[in-house]
Amino acid sequence: MNNIPAQIIDGKTIAAAIRERVKDGVQALQQKGKSVSLTAILVGGAEAARVYAANQAKTCNEAGIEYSLLELPAETSQDDLLHQLDALARDRRVTGIMLHLPLPPGLNSQQAQFAIDVIKDVEGVNPSNIGHVLYGHPIISPCTASAALALIESTGVALRGAEVTVVGASRIAGRPIALLLTERGATVTVCQVDTRDVAAHCRRADVLVVAVGSASLISGDDIKPGAVVIDVGINRRIETAANGQTISRIVGDVDFESARTVAGWITPVPGGVGPMTVAMLLSNTLRAARLAWGVDTIW
Amino acid sequence: MNNIPAQIIDGKTIAAAIRERVKDGVQALQQKGKSVSLTAILVGGAEAARVYAANQAKTCNEAGIEYSLLELPAETSQDDLLHQLDALARDRRVTGIMLHLPLPPGLNSQQAQFAIDVIKDVEGVNPSNIGHVLYGHPIISPCTASAALALIESTGVALRGAEVTVVGASRIAGRPIALLLTERGATVTVCQVDTRDVAAHCRRADVLVVAVGSASLISGDDIKPGAVVIDVGINRRIETAANGQTISRIVGDVDFESARTVAGWITPVPGGVGPMTVAMLLSNTLRAARLAWGVDTIW
Repeated sequence: MNNIPAQIIDGKTIAAAIRERVKDGVQALQQKGKSVSLTAILVGGAEAARVYAANQAKTCNEAGIEYSLLELPAETSQDDLLHQLDALARDRRVTGIMLHLPLPPGLNSQQAQFAIDVIKDVEGVNPSNIGHVLYGHPIISPCTASAALALIESTGVALRGAEVTVVGASRIAGRPIALLLTERGATVTVCQVDTRDVAAHCRRADVLVVAVGSASLISGDDIKPGAVVIDVGINRRIETAANGQTISRIVGDVDFESARTVAGWITPVPGGVGPMTVAMLLSNTLRAARLAWGVDTIW
Repeated sequence: MNNIPAQIIDGKTIAAAIRERVKDGVQALQQKGKSVSLTAILVGGAEAARVYAANQAKTCNEAGIEYSLLELPAETSQDDLLHQLDALARDRRVTGIMLHLPLPPGLNSQQAQFAIDVIKDVEGVNPSNIGHVLYGHPIISPCTASAALALIESTGVALRGAEVTVVGASRIAGRPIALLLTERGATVTVCQVDTRDVAAHCRRADVLVVAVGSASLISGDDIKPGAVVIDVGINRRIETAANGQTISRIVGDVDFESARTVAGWITPVPGGVGPMTVAMLLSNTLRAARLAWGVDTIW
């Protein structure tokens, strides 16, 4: 351990800059009469999901993106859902599509994701988009993975030849992150629940990405001095304050206080990957519109 | 090092058993009047490619699969190629499609691969099929990756929690292999050309997969005693015999003689991954036909 605390990777500030760029890009399209829109589908949404969607609407509108929420009843059949996704794919006024997860029990989310039009898939969750990432020719990349990559790159660390450990092999975060970093020339190890010695893999990593969803899983002892640490986890922890009151706090997968004394750079939670993922969704929405309008092309 | 030589993973024998199973499966479909076919596209094929295709025809016919070679002139445009792939996708008599690579200069192979019908894509190279593998819901898996996995599984080694090192991050072999092994619960590290210390990653691997295309890159010194070693490389080496004659020999990426004194199991080259990859192509062709005829379903 050293005593120089890690530099904080300020996700909020980096995200704000991206959102400004997106806003400019959206404006440029609109000035040519080309709309930029995002239709989100929410099936059988609970109150919390509606609050989330309302926030998303606000964020989109700030960037000039037209946001619509398509609410479907919980009883929606898989066929109906696929039909809706197909209709959105064909609708020229819709340039971006996303599907809120989880879906109600009985619906197949992966089949639905596969039915999201590839060039309107602003979350980058269609398996085709994942495959294009593996092939080194991304059309639209998964938001969380892109967010992690952008935050790593913001530090200026050289990824080519770097030892990278990704803790967590989820389909939405860990695995796509590993693909993006492999493409950048890093030597990437993906640890998962059955990994024998996660700490050893963490301690040898120049870049450590933790995406498990387990509060304070990784501490400073598990970090190589000077490493770049990207904390993808967002966990709610209930704590008892000095006055006996119960408070709820958002924490990451990394124990920030111990980690910052060892790491060279670290993302805070909140304020790291979270706002950056939102910025990437907006950036993808602009990209999708550019593809839909033929301003960008795939090949 | 120990002195008990490694057990040889006999790809030829394992492949022969798979080919028999495929033959039975093909026959079962045909008895119900459902054809199993593979149409291979060869654009501007050189003599060597035609010889390869002729061998493929023979292999398919032995399994009861109807094989057609569609030869297109070297001047074929990208649009023509996409048009042909689309026609094959729509043709109900065609249940399997593959595209010989490399394509002549000027043609975009990734765009062409993306145009191969997902359920007829017997090589598993459409980015959608790669993405479905990452999502843990494979429709048709890439042949070489499936071959490597099947050979590892033939040893009975437990993959869950195993330390796996994949040397080589190619899009056709290394990266898909890593996805399949991650899905099986292994801790997977992918090394590539800029990896700082490939040997160190190899020496800690319970399972080592080498897929670089560089003769005898990995020696016994780089192998953990008892490890499973899968050699994906097929390299032609020119040697001078004792009598002064020049001979051409097929060798793998692993130096077999030194490796077999350390490893627990090892694939020979030739006779390891090669014949197994062919068997996987046949197995995928049967799978594609079952999907095309609705005997298997995706979801």
